[in-house]
Amino acid sequence: MSHPFNVTAQSQTTRARAGELKLVHGTIKTPVFMPVGTLASVKSLSPEELKEAGAQIILGNTYHLYLRPGCEVIDLFSGLHRFMNWDRPILTDSGGFQVFSLAKLTKITEEGAAFQSHIDGSKHLLTPEKSVEVQISLNSDIMMCLDQCIEYPAEKEAVRAALEITTRWAKRCKSTWTEKTGGKNALFGIVQGGMFEDLRRQSAEELGEMDFPGYALGGLSVGEPNQMMYDVAEYALPLLPDNKPKYIMGVGTPEDLVELVARGADMFDCVMPSRNARNGQLFTRNGAINISNARFRTDTGPADPECDCYTCRNYSRAYLRHLYMNRELLAYRLNTLHNIHFYIRLMERMRAAITDGEFDAFRRNFHAHWQAR
Amino acid sequence: MSHPFNVTAQSQTTRARAGELKLVHGTIKTPVFMPVGTLASVKSLSPEELKEAGAQIILGNTYHLYLRPGCEVIDLFSGLHRFMNWDRPILTDSGGFQVFSLAKLTKITEEGAAFQSHIDGSKHLLTPEKSVEVQISLNSDIMMCLDQCIEYPAEKEAVRAALEITTRWAKRCKSTWTEKTGGKNALFGIVQGGMFEDLRRQSAEELGEMDFPGYALGGLSVGEPNQMMYDVAEYALPLLPDNKPKYIMGVGTPEDLVELVARGADMFDCVMPSRNARNGQLFTRNGAINISNARFRTDTGPADPECDCYTCRNYSRAYLRHLYMNRELLAYRLNTLHNIHFYIRLMERMRAAITDGEFDAFRRNFHAHWQAR
Repeated sequence: MSHPFNVTAQSQTTRARAGELKLVHGTIKTPVFMPVGTLASVKSLSPEELKEAGAQIILGNTYHLYLRPGCEVIDLFSGLHRFMNWDRPILTDSGGFQVFSLAKLTKITEEGAAFQSHIDGSKHLLTPEKSVEVQISLNSDIMMCLDQCIEYPAEKEAVRAALEITTRWAKRCKSTWTEKTGGKNALFGIVQGGMFEDLRRQSAEELGEMDFPGYALGGLSVGEPNQMMYDVAEYALPLLPDNKPKYIMGVGTPEDLVELVARGADMFDCVMPSRNARNGQLFTRNGAINISNARFRTDTGPADPECDCYTCRNYSRAYLRHLYMNRELLAYRLNTLHNIHFYIRLMERMRAAITDGEFDAFRRNFHAHWQAR
Repeated sequence: MSHPFNVTAQSQTTRARAGELKLVHGTIKTPVFMPVGTLASVKSLSPEELKEAGAQIILGNTYHLYLRPGCEVIDLFSGLHRFMNWDRPILTDSGGFQVFSLAKLTKITEEGAAFQSHIDGSKHLLTPEKSVEVQISLNSDIMMCLDQCIEYPAEKEAVRAALEITTRWAKRCKSTWTEKTGGKNALFGIVQGGMFEDLRRQSAEELGEMDFPGYALGGLSVGEPNQMMYDVAEYALPLLPDNKPKYIMGVGTPEDLVELVARGADMFDCVMPSRNARNGQLFTRNGAINISNARFRTDTGPADPECDCYTCRNYSRAYLRHLYMNRELLAYRLNTLHNIHFYIRLMERMRAAITDGEFDAFRRNFHAHWQAR
């Protein structure tokens, strides 16, 4: 089965582009931001609120859902969608990143990654086949290949070894996917290679030959300087096939999204809007504010006067500050709703600008406001 | 200004009755349950969700709101309604109960209650006049007189002294209310007297002469046996004028509500449905369940098969358990929504039964199911 990606508009002066990607649970318009719903919930929000904010697709985390509630529970609902009451597309990561960052990794072999659960210390082996099988159980619209993500900085030989095992694992993921689903849901390959241009090229070529329905750049936003991330995107995104969606994993700030769309990225996910919301940070076109600031105590205006989200339509900064200072549960919800809305609107504005041939102007305007603070 | 209360139906075999109470922000139908929104938020819920659950009136706490955010903030919004985005009636307590239970009470004199804030230790004096003034600032539809609530058990002379100061404070509350609002918003008197019938009678008579728009029984659910609470309600509710709404403060379980409506109570508030929801307890017609129970791990049915709330329409016990076990913020919200809905529907069912002359049958049926578990 095919997962057609159509580029519907292309900026003439940058690599920014607009597109449409057809998936099992619907067609998504790119560039797109995917809110993160690690444990089958975008923290504090209902599916209806996500839809009202314009979310087209959300993320689930394979590692977390494999451990809790476990596939035997998800299987009772024939996947994640009915379990969590979300009928639009879902992308799941492979679990690899969490095995390397969250679990106690015990051993990496050619076979897979042996780890101990961060919850109860139980022992597990995550193989490429297992990762795809779990994602099939989740019935993800977009599954990701198991990869080996490497930290920054790292020695070139270690980065090369990680990308090469990633390539071999990708082949096994693709075999499992083809055998077990006939390619019904999409499977994306993940390009590694760290901050080395020749290694990114090697990885892109090896994975490109496998003709995945889409490609991601992995191993970014792992501690490298911001400009270095932009540079990698600048040379690595063009190495990916232009007729496939290009996804940068785990990124980033609003500024990052604008700069990476300019370099040709189509898809993003990041915990920043939701996590920062829970820490009182609210995004506006002029930059971020922290609602705990004492100057908002008597501020009767909305969090962002230019925003039309539920939070900004109905509540003042004074009320949001009051809720936040008192750790009221509604605070996390109203803040998260605003930030998710902000991120999604930012993508929609970029898409419109690309379609209208005005992305350059949009980008300049964005930076002029964002820097103003 | 008057706050007409019309009894629209009266059970022939019990004291249960249905009525309508006209308030500044709308007319409420009784018997009614009022969800508690201590800090200008019914924890985890939006005003829209409360309305969908059928909430007609909610509670705010004067003590908490006086300390945070403070009247100078609330005044910028001309009261609590616009501050918290709730346009239906609000009842506020006097702050007295919290001064006695939550704050560090330093001294009670004829003038009022001196206390130190539980937040920062700052010193305050809560007088009857001050309590009403704060509630005027909150623009509550129903304000409560400052009373002295006494613990159980207590010596009769202490109970008598508390009820007598409550009477004197009630006079001062009424004066302030009349002078400053012309009686626009309603002010309720609070009958004390502990578990002593003659003292309840004395209190009811003294307050009855003052002709308040409504009356509450205070000092219940303070540790006394359940049957004792029913007994007090049995003899004290008839002491209150029948043409006024009768409110039992801070009560209770679903069973309590049924038994107290049978004894003539019209209004209730309690943190139980919301607090217990946050502890994983969900109410059903057959009793309460705790969603953390392992048997719900693979239960694909709704929390309560007879319930039509948002939670039960859209989510399984397995999902609710998953969210709760992982301390996902959505858990508190979905659980709270269900319990608030359950309490409000219970009142609606009682009201319908009273109106249809079938309250006895309703009550028997309720207990048959509730005891079944």
